[in-house]
Amino acid sequence: MAERLQGIFTPNLVPLDSKGDINEEVLRKYVDWLIEKGVHGLYPNGSTGEFTRFTFEERKRIVSIIADQTRGRVPILAGAAEANVKETLKACEYYAELGVRAVAIVAPFYYKLGPEAVFAYFREIGRNTPVDVTLYNIPMFASPIDVPTVQRLADECERITAIKDSSGELPHMIRMIQAVRPNRPDFAFLTGWDAALMPMILVGCDGGTNASSGVVPEITRKLYDLTLAGKLDDARKIQYDLVTLFDTMLYSAEFPDGFREAVKLRGFDMGHGRQPRSEHQEQDLSILRRTLQCSLADHGFTQEPIGGCPVGEGSADETADVRNIVMTVVSELQKKGML
Amino acid sequence: MAERLQGIFTPNLVPLDSKGDINEEVLRKYVDWLIEKGVHGLYPNGSTGEFTRFTFEERKRIVSIIADQTRGRVPILAGAAEANVKETLKACEYYAELGVRAVAIVAPFYYKLGPEAVFAYFREIGRNTPVDVTLYNIPMFASPIDVPTVQRLADECERITAIKDSSGELPHMIRMIQAVRPNRPDFAFLTGWDAALMPMILVGCDGGTNASSGVVPEITRKLYDLTLAGKLDDARKIQYDLVTLFDTMLYSAEFPDGFREAVKLRGFDMGHGRQPRSEHQEQDLSILRRTLQCSLADHGFTQEPIGGCPVGEGSADETADVRNIVMTVVSELQKKGML
Amino acid sequence: MAERLQGIFTPNLVPLDSKGDINEEVLRKYVDWLIEKGVHGLYPNGSTGEFTRFTFEERKRIVSIIADQTRGRVPILAGAAEANVKETLKACEYYAELGVRAVAIVAPFYYKLGPEAVFAYFREIGRNTPVDVTLYNIPMFASPIDVPTVQRLADECERITAIKDSSGELPHMIRMIQAVRPNRPDFAFLTGWDAALMPMILVGCDGGTNASSGVVPEITRKLYDLTLAGKLDDARKIQYDLVTLFDTMLYSAEFPDGFREAVKLRGFDMGHGRQPRSEHQEQDLSILRRTLQCSLADHGFTQEPIGGCPVGEGSADETADVRNIVMTVVSELQKKGML
Amino acid sequence: MAERLQGIFTPNLVPLDSKGDINEEVLRKYVDWLIEKGVHGLYPNGSTGEFTRFTFEERKRIVSIIADQTRGRVPILAGAAEANVKETLKACEYYAELGVRAVAIVAPFYYKLGPEAVFAYFREIGRNTPVDVTLYNIPMFASPIDVPTVQRLADECERITAIKDSSGELPHMIRMIQAVRPNRPDFAFLTGWDAALMPMILVGCDGGTNASSGVVPEITRKLYDLTLAGKLDDARKIQYDLVTLFDTMLYSAEFPDGFREAVKLRGFDMGHGRQPRSEHQEQDLSILRRTLQCSLADHGFTQEPIGGCPVGEGSADETADVRNIVMTVVSELQKKGML
Repeated sequence: MAERLQGIFTPNLVPLDSKGDINEEVLRKYVDWLIEKGVHGLYPNGSTGEFTRFTFEERKRIVSIIADQTRGRVPILAGAAEANVKETLKACEYYAELGVRAVAIVAPFYYKLGPEAVFAYFREIGRNTPVDVTLYNIPMFASPIDVPTVQRLADECERITAIKDSSGELPHMIRMIQAVRPNRPDFAFLTGWDAALMPMILVGCDGGTNASSGVVPEITRKLYDLTLAGKLDDARKIQYDLVTLFDTMLYSAEFPDGFREAVKLRGFDMGHGRQPRSEHQEQDLSILRRTLQCSLADHGFTQEPIGGCPVGEGSADETADVRNIVMTVVSELQKKGML
Repeated sequence: MAERLQGIFTPNLVPLDSKGDINEEVLRKYVDWLIEKGVHGLYPNGSTGEFTRFTFEERKRIVSIIADQTRGRVPILAGAAEANVKETLKACEYYAELGVRAVAIVAPFYYKLGPEAVFAYFREIGRNTPVDVTLYNIPMFASPIDVPTVQRLADECERITAIKDSSGELPHMIRMIQAVRPNRPDFAFLTGWDAALMPMILVGCDGGTNASSGVVPEITRKLYDLTLAGKLDDARKIQYDLVTLFDTMLYSAEFPDGFREAVKLRGFDMGHGRQPRSEHQEQDLSILRRTLQCSLADHGFTQEPIGGCPVGEGSADETADVRNIVMTVVSELQKKGML
Repeated sequence: MAERLQGIFTPNLVPLDSKGDINEEVLRKYVDWLIEKGVHGLYPNGSTGEFTRFTFEERKRIVSIIADQTRGRVPILAGAAEANVKETLKACEYYAELGVRAVAIVAPFYYKLGPEAVFAYFREIGRNTPVDVTLYNIPMFASPIDVPTVQRLADECERITAIKDSSGELPHMIRMIQAVRPNRPDFAFLTGWDAALMPMILVGCDGGTNASSGVVPEITRKLYDLTLAGKLDDARKIQYDLVTLFDTMLYSAEFPDGFREAVKLRGFDMGHGRQPRSEHQEQDLSILRRTLQCSLADHGFTQEPIGGCPVGEGSADETADVRNIVMTVVSELQKKGML
Repeated sequence: MAERLQGIFTPNLVPLDSKGDINEEVLRKYVDWLIEKGVHGLYPNGSTGEFTRFTFEERKRIVSIIADQTRGRVPILAGAAEANVKETLKACEYYAELGVRAVAIVAPFYYKLGPEAVFAYFREIGRNTPVDVTLYNIPMFASPIDVPTVQRLADECERITAIKDSSGELPHMIRMIQAVRPNRPDFAFLTGWDAALMPMILVGCDGGTNASSGVVPEITRKLYDLTLAGKLDDARKIQYDLVTLFDTMLYSAEFPDGFREAVKLRGFDMGHGRQPRSEHQEQDLSILRRTLQCSLADHGFTQEPIGGCPVGEGSADETADVRNIVMTVVSELQKKGML
């Protein structure tokens, strides 16, 4: 029996060149940097990696480049969802040949399927995959994989060995662990919700696939280590900082543009994302950029922007604006039941 | 200026063979039958056509077969959404060459984008498309296209000439028409919600893209004609029947399996859809099949199943069961705000 | 068997004096005015009447004043929901003695109850009420009353004789009528959603309880009459205008403050509502007041504000602002599934 | 400056006699029992206490009895929400005279108010209350109190000294603490979501108002103590058990009937709740009763039911049924965004 997946896997952003194509050179440098900064694994073709905005050929190329550059230094979890089961299995085979540790497959999206259909979908994949499968539950974007379904799949399909859950709900995580672990001690539970990373680990999670780790791998790694070591007062402070940074990147721009901008500030030319932007969005993004630069400079990860940063919280109008906008958006999403 | 799109466009289901590939022969026969039964146009690669479960190559082939078989007898509205703007524009070009009347493009899905991003996306397409574009608003599955966004796009992009709205909300349709028609009398409004077809037309809609028209084209056509002719008492009766049939097909199985089963009863071998099914789902579907056969037999569209049909409403347990399940599911969806 | 409820019932706003108490004098004048303007009935203690913000004693007093002032000129539908079944039945008895035509009882709120509990609640009331009961379905605010529940209640409880539905969904209305009318031809269906009044009547509704009728009773009455007379082109124009006015009153301020402001412009001193307002809300309301005054002046219902109104649509910044805010709020609510 | 509220406050259920009136004798005995079992405080007139189903007079009597019986042994947090601000302030004055430690006031419900209105409401109360106020955020049932609103209220109103949050979201709790604590170190944060009690305390919460503590005060107290003492492995096991018990009580019956049934098993005659039940609900409740009895017997809190309990998980059909139903309901609620 293989060991459980554990630690922080970075959902890879994809750098693009001026034509909007994959920028292989930057991607290779970015992979090296992440590994040097201590992430436990890489996770291409996730939501952060904008998998839906690439073609199948491009998705294969992304994993191929990352696998080649990684050369086994860290395990790879490759997003393998394609248009249907047959195509998804082709992807599984391809990634298996590249030597990935496992694939991650999001529940069917666009159509919102019920539990029986979600079960049937993953069972078909679980029966035919040549590589371990991580279920990917992200009810905000795709059909939810509910607890009884996770349990049935874990009981029936040996090849399904983990779940990545991006719901961010602690009780849900506890329910899944309770339902699955007794029969499947090898099954891993990863959280995709950075804002709850520390408490998730404390209730029994094995790790996370956290977009923030692509921006501040030093911080997510430290949070993970301190939490495991039981240094909770220190961990809590870092978790608080991470909530602020995560919220800013997540809610001040269309996902994952906030993360793309932040990675630029760490020195990587990410290029322009594939989703077109309006003039209004460009303005918002330029304010966000300044806020992020001050945040990152505050941790010594980059230099302050020209003109300097506000001293203390809330003293600069623009930064305060971003914070207020973020909080208002968070509230809206909560009202909508999306958070 | 071209004439406004109008009438009932059938969102084409795709017949599959035993290997799960497109069954060209049945598709051609089905196209002929629909045209003979009086539908005003065809609409491949819509949600009913399960566009997300095919590859780009397959989607092109579907439109190609339908265009070839139609030979100009009715206009074609081709679903053209691909992974990103560049790919979508390639699709637009391909379909333009096939001579389609317009393309239909759903708002970005998976990620739930805000109005500015939805605007930027369609503006980019509107500026570069070689063929008329129909916006496709289906907030149940994709990012919503709100009224101010429709208005901005109509004002800025001449090539955007219609919207297909599957929200089913009358006031929303009225708000769109009020916002757009003064500046764009050529802009067409189509409803994708069969259960509100008659009242939608009465408040100013130009027609619909209605999945039911692929099953009972005689009925949707008659409803459309009676409504336009002002024979509202007759139209209302048909609308009531259509609600019952539509609900049964929509809520008794994962979409669009109920519609696929019903088309089989009209004599077309649709094959098995691409989404795997559990044993439990197969059982539900076999009960549904009987219910549908009785419904269609009641209108003379097929024969009664062996064993006969219940006399009058609710006298047969299975049929009553299906009705109750449907109503319960509808209620659930309403509570969830999905209806 | 009594005749079905039909026509437009006005959900009464409650004028308050400077101390926040019921202003009896204005209320009596307002009742006379509504009856003179042609509303078919009155409906105190509804959502528009802010029933939750009054005490039981005050709610009784409101109905008592209205019944006394009406003196049988039009039927009264009295909102009778209290803290629990026992208190609600006390209210039913009190209103029955005042001679109301029926009571209206909203489904339990705060706790979101499932169909079985909603059924049990209304059945208990239906078995013990001395007066006809109208179910009040408003899923936006209270536990939903789904179609099978309406059907069960209609079948079991003779005293339950109508439903007022504020969901605004056409297919839902059709489903209810189909489920109930065969066994209960005396059961009435009223819509609470002004923005869909015309199409609701066209699919079989008996009338409405429409907040707009408390502001522009001339218009809702005319819309009702034209629709029944089959003059659909004229009716449609009025329905379009009503959507604009309704949206402005509904979405530009916390409900029902927009309606309270509009009634002030018709000459009634409504006073300040019971819900406190922030400075920011007061500002928004003062902009809204001007917009409403121009709308009402446009129909000759009041004079233009000092400084005049914009000529044509969108030429005045403030008015355009209100329209944009309204549309944005509508979009937000739609995304949230609340519309 | 008073000390921060902390520890576990029990939201009191209200025992009723055969006529549906408050059973004072049982209530007094129940209060004594809770205090003896170690709860830190009592919280009458919360959601668990079904405050909306009592009259104002009854709500006052409930607090009065509890205050009299408690005689200062533990602090009391009294739910004080009434029909409007004036009535709510009357309640605050009454409870202040009874010597309660603070009142708790839920955000306005029925109407879903926006942040500005929620702010204005609580500010008006905060300016006039004679007793400390705890905000009560329960977005599932009432208008949400978002983070910026909590911050504004904490900054402007000294008398507002705590928030009870029943959203159950960890990141939301972190955001509130970050926003409020720098300026208001005396402000307390309590969670109302038992299924996340341990991680909530670990991220900085001061305690909870947890319905489970009215059923198994020994367990919630132990969980609280172990967590504070840093014995996380032991705490985690108890938290897992609490999730199972909480889910069963919460999702197997209309709230709070599952909790009422469980307290009966601890020896208190709670009577029949005020919400009528259907035959179907009674059946479900009788199955639930048996499941709960086995759960509580397993902890030695009661005897096994006649016929005994299943050995090990899932071996008894009825119990497994309840678990499956619970999980399915949880999934439904998650899909609806209510969890």
